[in-house]
Amino acid sequence: MSDEATVRCAVRPGSYHDSVVLMQLQRALSALPGVLDAGVMMATPANRELLAASGLLPEEEMAAGPHDLLIAVKAESAAAAGEALARVDALLQLRRGAAGGGEQDFRPRSLASAFKLLPTARWVLISVPGRHAAGIAEEALDHDRNVFLYSDNVPVEREAALKRKARERGLLVLGPDCGTAIVGGIGLGFANRVRQGAIGLVGASGTGLQAIASQIHALGGGISQAIGTGGRDLSAEIGGITAIQALDLLRRDPETRTIVLVSKPPAPEVAARLLGLARSAGKPVVVYFLGAPLPARRLGDLHFAASLSEAAEMAVEWNNVGEGLVPSRAGASPAPTFMSGISGSLRGLFSGGTLAYETHLGLSAFLAPGRFKIVDLGADEFTVGRLHPMIDQDLRLRRLRHEAADRQVGLILLDVVLGEGAHADPAGELGPAIAEVRARRPDLDVAAVVIGTDEDPQDLAQQIETLERAGARVFRTVGELVDHAVRRLAAAEEAPGAPVPLEAIRGPVAAVNAGLESFYDSLVAQGAAAVQVEWKPPAGGDDKLAGILARMKGRS
Amino acid sequence: MSDEATVRCAVRPGSYHDSVVLMQLQRALSALPGVLDAGVMMATPANRELLAASGLLPEEEMAAGPHDLLIAVKAESAAAAGEALARVDALLQLRRGAAGGGEQDFRPRSLASAFKLLPTARWVLISVPGRHAAGIAEEALDHDRNVFLYSDNVPVEREAALKRKARERGLLVLGPDCGTAIVGGIGLGFANRVRQGAIGLVGASGTGLQAIASQIHALGGGISQAIGTGGRDLSAEIGGITAIQALDLLRRDPETRTIVLVSKPPAPEVAARLLGLARSAGKPVVVYFLGAPLPARRLGDLHFAASLSEAAEMAVEWNNVGEGLVPSRAGASPAPTFMSGISGSLRGLFSGGTLAYETHLGLSAFLAPGRFKIVDLGADEFTVGRLHPMIDQDLRLRRLRHEAADRQVGLILLDVVLGEGAHADPAGELGPAIAEVRARRPDLDVAAVVIGTDEDPQDLAQQIETLERAGARVFRTVGELVDHAVRRLAAAEEAPGAPVPLEAIRGPVAAVNAGLESFYDSLVAQGAAAVQVEWKPPAGGDDKLAGILARMKGRS
Repeated sequence: MSDEATVRCAVRPGSYHDSVVLMQLQRALSALPGVLDAGVMMATPANRELLAASGLLPEEEMAAGPHDLLIAVKAESAAAAGEALARVDALLQLRRGAAGGGEQDFRPRSLASAFKLLPTARWVLISVPGRHAAGIAEEALDHDRNVFLYSDNVPVEREAALKRKARERGLLVLGPDCGTAIVGGIGLGFANRVRQGAIGLVGASGTGLQAIASQIHALGGGISQAIGTGGRDLSAEIGGITAIQALDLLRRDPETRTIVLVSKPPAPEVAARLLGLARSAGKPVVVYFLGAPLPARRLGDLHFAASLSEAAEMAVEWNNVGEGLVPSRAGASPAPTFMSGISGSLRGLFSGGTLAYETHLGLSAFLAPGRFKIVDLGADEFTVGRLHPMIDQDLRLRRLRHEAADRQVGLILLDVVLGEGAHADPAGELGPAIAEVRARRPDLDVAAVVIGTDEDPQDLAQQIETLERAGARVFRTVGELVDHAVRRLAAAEEAPGAPVPLEAIRGPVAAVNAGLESFYDSLVAQGAAAVQVEWKPPAGGDDKLAGILARMKGRS
Repeated sequence: MSDEATVRCAVRPGSYHDSVVLMQLQRALSALPGVLDAGVMMATPANRELLAASGLLPEEEMAAGPHDLLIAVKAESAAAAGEALARVDALLQLRRGAAGGGEQDFRPRSLASAFKLLPTARWVLISVPGRHAAGIAEEALDHDRNVFLYSDNVPVEREAALKRKARERGLLVLGPDCGTAIVGGIGLGFANRVRQGAIGLVGASGTGLQAIASQIHALGGGISQAIGTGGRDLSAEIGGITAIQALDLLRRDPETRTIVLVSKPPAPEVAARLLGLARSAGKPVVVYFLGAPLPARRLGDLHFAASLSEAAEMAVEWNNVGEGLVPSRAGASPAPTFMSGISGSLRGLFSGGTLAYETHLGLSAFLAPGRFKIVDLGADEFTVGRLHPMIDQDLRLRRLRHEAADRQVGLILLDVVLGEGAHADPAGELGPAIAEVRARRPDLDVAAVVIGTDEDPQDLAQQIETLERAGARVFRTVGELVDHAVRRLAAAEEAPGAPVPLEAIRGPVAAVNAGLESFYDSLVAQGAAAVQVEWKPPAGGDDKLAGILARMKGRS
């Protein structure tokens, strides 16, 4: 790089250009004689930093805001830089004229006319800049079309409003910031070409869906549908509206026999609702919440994965089990038990801290926080001057009677830890107390996990029998105890709103595309019917003027 | 219960009694004529609540602090209550005389004389009240003995001081609040009777160790050692001193062929150190951190479990694999690769948000936060007016050159996502840039994860070949990419301090017990040599007087 390298910049205030056009302009400038490097970006703080890091920001202050276009050229001489900048407008004209979409002769300028051209279009793909995207999405919903909203930088309130509207009408809004979907065998946005099959994916995670779908393909499995929801869908603000619709859709889709749900960690209440819905899907559901602790390995037909690739492996395995291709390694899926649900709350009276903690973790994934309370009676606060509850159960027996007297309590969980050092006959004390409270309240469910071996001094089999005879259900692992509690307490969830018709995800696919032409090209290459809308921002991207125009139209 | 039931209370200020004695007193009072219920507790706020809940707290205010003993009696009449309370002192005398330890004729009153009685004792079990426990533990260390410290309510600073002293001398302090250990085939504290075997456990979780050990036994496996560390050991304050010693000990123990590490979520820096040590154990290590997200399913010889019962299953499975009893389901343990370690830091330049996130999660478990940085170039902040990095790699190519120019950076991670909608030839752009930076810096390691299928338009095999020819290592899952990075960057950890001699955990076991007599009885029942110390609190539990006595002895 020459020492005399000169950097010069031009600003186009409030100017809108397609990002493809900007990329092409940057490349064209870089290729001009004497030009060493070029940068063409909207003048956001992040982009300014980038230009600076590449030595493309001149030292004088540039009067450019985040909606202004910044064009920077580093050249061998001031003259070469000046000549390059002088050609910007000509290059922009050139590039715009040369843009793709060659197969389509007439380009409608509005969604309404696009739908006239392609009335079977059930989907609208939107990848225009974020501040314009929500308006187009709303228009699509008003035309009763599903939306694939690739654009990011859409405010969360707009997202919530769009999704509520879509839910009322039985439509889907995938996104904003949704990168990936596969519906009716056609990839929308970024999507790998995969075998058609029986595994349906739902994900608030674009590359997560791609990684899982690709690996399912590599493992010999196939994809029925892949429904991206946008990264914010499982936040408390949005409440998982799209994920719930998608899960409900795949539950009803006869082509989907196994479901995978993937997301960055959802808001706890959203996770609980989704898992409640997944539990009642009647199909195996593999769940991977990135960065969240696993509530269990498996609860009924729910399987929790610890990585993208494990989610793919588990989906293929359980789908093969479901199709009878291979026997289950982990035992057959337990037949759904139709126990009457309990409407009351849950109390856990534990002597083991870790057992209490693991039980709490498992329940937290499925139950609202107010619904259950797990007490560790071996915690420091309870053991000042008192024997540990594994030796002296007086406190636990008192609490058991106390909790059972509360009609709001429907289920009590206990742990019984045998072995050296522990009480010589814990079941002998607990059993009569359990029988006593259950005699007063036959509706009260009491369940216990027993930790011990057949060599322990207390006689494991005898301890279990005593508890069972008193009316307690006995399990041998915390996972089984939690599964029991969740089955008794968690109601099967129903998706609210109008159900999305299965036609939304069935082929043949027809779609209208507003934004990135490469998405249009990709639709056509995959054999879908598509129309590209010649979208331009209102008033050429001038927000002030656009506001005036909108007010004149009475749309504030 | 009669309406005329009367509640009366007595207070014994600053009075110390063994908790077994208190339990026995409560039972004796409850059995007296006319008595309906009785409570005998130290007057802590939690215990006062409990008494109130049982209707055992009189309405008048009781002048009793947390170190005072509260004796409450509910009786049919005031007379019966009064008679019961009048018998408290007699009952206390009676109970104390009747306490167990029948086999031992002479009871030493100090550790020093206990060691004279049983010089082979390598262990001291301490279960006296927390405020007295640390002093006895320190005395045991001064006598070069390992400590099993069952007592809770020991201040964290005392714990840290004890453990640092122990580490210097090659001794173990299990606890405070350590419920469980099995050393040399003998259970200390609470412990299940299990088959001797090849699986060694380390745990900051008493019932966690019991649950895992019991299930390993049920699955046909056996336990070599189980070393509890106390619940606070893996906190930032303690730094996992005992867990690190224990892991190092089991690594050297020829009888232990598979290790299980269980804990509530450790402080991140402690987890990273423990995992670093575990990676270099040369044996399979199953890790279960309750409530923490799994960094992966498996990294080399590390296996991450999602529940207590899964930890047991994995330990038995991998131990069977190690012993050649069964073939590995998940592929053989990869041969350790002795690549030269990289001392620099790591940069990830990602186009996929989920791939970036999963990579970050995996690395976080092993590397200090300052050691690596993963950038998601597809995040909102980078895409204003610019194409997504899956379409336009200009930004990533710039960052790649920029990071490579920094000599502190030793490893760069990339993702390459193929498929519909994505760049037509990402490797064709990345390859030359990788080759260019590696030509300047042959020491720089570049690794990429490629997501895609053999049906994708970019030609998967060709993309991989192009990247590999440019000098990048290519992986197909994030897990493999993270494994590679951790192998290159994380140094094998060495346990600091003096190594604990293997004799500490070898039989025959001899131990001195101060506190709960049931622990002494249990030692004897298991065939261990044991001596019960007739421990009494200084000045009969009167803290003021004890302070004066201590100062007179010059121990402040």
